[in-house]
Amino acid sequence: MPPGLKDVAKRAGVSIKTVSNVVNGYAHVAADTRARVQGAIAELGYRPNVAARQLRGGRSGVIALALPDLRSAYFAELASMIVQAAEKRHWTVLIDQTGGRADRERDLAGRLRRHLIDGLIFSPLAMAAGEIAVDVPDTPMVLLGERVWHGPADHVAVDNTAAAADATRHLCELGRRRIAAIGAQDGPVAVSAQQRLAGYRAALEQHGRTVDPALIAPAAEFHRADGAAAMGRLLDSGEPPDAVFCFNDLLALGAIRTLLDRGYAVPGDVAVVGFDDIEEGRFSTPTLTTVSPDTAGIARLAVELLAERLDQPLTGDGAAAEPSFREIRVEHRVVPRESTLGRLAARRR
Amino acid sequence: MPPGLKDVAKRAGVSIKTVSNVVNGYAHVAADTRARVQGAIAELGYRPNVAARQLRGGRSGVIALALPDLRSAYFAELASMIVQAAEKRHWTVLIDQTGGRADRERDLAGRLRRHLIDGLIFSPLAMAAGEIAVDVPDTPMVLLGERVWHGPADHVAVDNTAAAADATRHLCELGRRRIAAIGAQDGPVAVSAQQRLAGYRAALEQHGRTVDPALIAPAAEFHRADGAAAMGRLLDSGEPPDAVFCFNDLLALGAIRTLLDRGYAVPGDVAVVGFDDIEEGRFSTPTLTTVSPDTAGIARLAVELLAERLDQPLTGDGAAAEPSFREIRVEHRVVPRESTLGRLAARRR
Repeated sequence: MPPGLKDVAKRAGVSIKTVSNVVNGYAHVAADTRARVQGAIAELGYRPNVAARQLRGGRSGVIALALPDLRSAYFAELASMIVQAAEKRHWTVLIDQTGGRADRERDLAGRLRRHLIDGLIFSPLAMAAGEIAVDVPDTPMVLLGERVWHGPADHVAVDNTAAAADATRHLCELGRRRIAAIGAQDGPVAVSAQQRLAGYRAALEQHGRTVDPALIAPAAEFHRADGAAAMGRLLDSGEPPDAVFCFNDLLALGAIRTLLDRGYAVPGDVAVVGFDDIEEGRFSTPTLTTVSPDTAGIARLAVELLAERLDQPLTGDGAAAEPSFREIRVEHRVVPRESTLGRLAARRR
Repeated sequence: MPPGLKDVAKRAGVSIKTVSNVVNGYAHVAADTRARVQGAIAELGYRPNVAARQLRGGRSGVIALALPDLRSAYFAELASMIVQAAEKRHWTVLIDQTGGRADRERDLAGRLRRHLIDGLIFSPLAMAAGEIAVDVPDTPMVLLGERVWHGPADHVAVDNTAAAADATRHLCELGRRRIAAIGAQDGPVAVSAQQRLAGYRAALEQHGRTVDPALIAPAAEFHRADGAAAMGRLLDSGEPPDAVFCFNDLLALGAIRTLLDRGYAVPGDVAVVGFDDIEEGRFSTPTLTTVSPDTAGIARLAVELLAERLDQPLTGDGAAAEPSFREIRVEHRVVPRESTLGRLAARRR
């Protein structure tokens, strides 16, 4: 019979409770006591329950969700939906906020591995696809977001470029001539922004408009304050635009606030479109026209794909069959509201 | 020398990699292979690395944060601040969304214990203080929120009743006569709502106003849609109020949307105050007057108190000295903005 807690306690000359405290990593154990218990554990070859439980079940019932930023309402809403979808499978979801920083994303596997998670749903911002393959080698994973097409795992995302083109087309069809963009970004972390910019350009060219670089405003981050500042710069720099496509809803809500503060009517003077369809834009004044990705579908699919990976049939020696990874694009649609249609027209729809 | 991975692999007749996959709980191992490896582990008394690593360090460097609802911007912003505060100590924070449901809050310890967390920051909604003491017995913990004064752990919260009274007083001082409240709730999970209602009543009585039960509107949840619906019911039920104190910002933003939709001016006809000071209210139209708790202070203190608990001096046999729990109230202030002052007055401040 393998040694138990009792044997360790006897050998170390402490209570069973104290052994349990050491094994479970609790803090309230004096250093010398901890050392004595650890010595007894090593001598006896005792295997703590946490590992035994894990070995019996093979599954912890817990998955991790790693995403850039909970202050971004889109990610907070997505996280909430993933928790709900996972609950139907009786999974607990532990959420890790990476800040979208490469060092924290790279360190993700290290930070999560000891937690006996069954799988990972990961929305990377800074890491490239190749890095992810290296750094999260053994954990079943589903990737979210437009960062990593053809990555090393199943992947669920909206067609970013097409969605941005649809948003811009909506503004063209309303007869707007000087259509600005807010949210341009450079560098390797800016894949999403670059795809949205590409969609914006494509739609303008399709409508025979020239792309005016003076109407493309960068944003360091995608928060309300960035949108407010970028809109201010656009208004200060020459003839104002008559429409703005913002690369997310928070930028759009910040831009609207600046427009109203400066005495511009929305959409009378400037029509505004966002991207994400966060709840805030359904209650803002004016309500926000936006690209609505099927976020609930992303959450549901992410959990389903991960569940399939966990249940996958296996070959003899425990090596999985060479996996083929799925790329799933979810639907999107433009939802016209007051910020482009005006109040009465929006109500009639 | 204790047995190693190699010994287990030899005994089970599989590769070291396969043993590692079983030990780490990865899914891609056939059931019979897994059973053979587990048998060899048991025979040899092998202690997997995950436990060994834990025993060496005594700390995992990971804490858990359990909170009700990430769709509520206040909790998402609080979570983000706690992650930042913890990062200064090189802690990883795993977030668990409980939905504020008693069953998920009760099961918290069970869901987290196997994850070798060093400590827990817990914002309970449904659990009572006594239950928390029973169900999270061994993990160093800090409690957040007004639910659990005199609970079984260090506790950080705003003075809810005083803050609600201050918000209501602000409306009284502006000369409003029919001041409504949105967010009343019954039952044991409604402590926070009841404290805010008590503050509202106290301030009205202090200003010699009678409390009109017809002006107290319940809200099932604290989301924008609940505020919008409650405001609609208040407007339908008789003489409209000339001010509303909403028990959080999301309720207030929903209420404002209903007022504007029905043709009421804010604050001209109805002044509105919220509670939480979420970022959204600084950019909404009108900007939102609100109670601003020191949320960054709550985040910082929660992490500091937990760190102190983890470093606490200890007595001989590993039992901690009888702990005395700290109750810390953070500051709050009313931030007047356009929803009570109007646009020009708000700008002059």
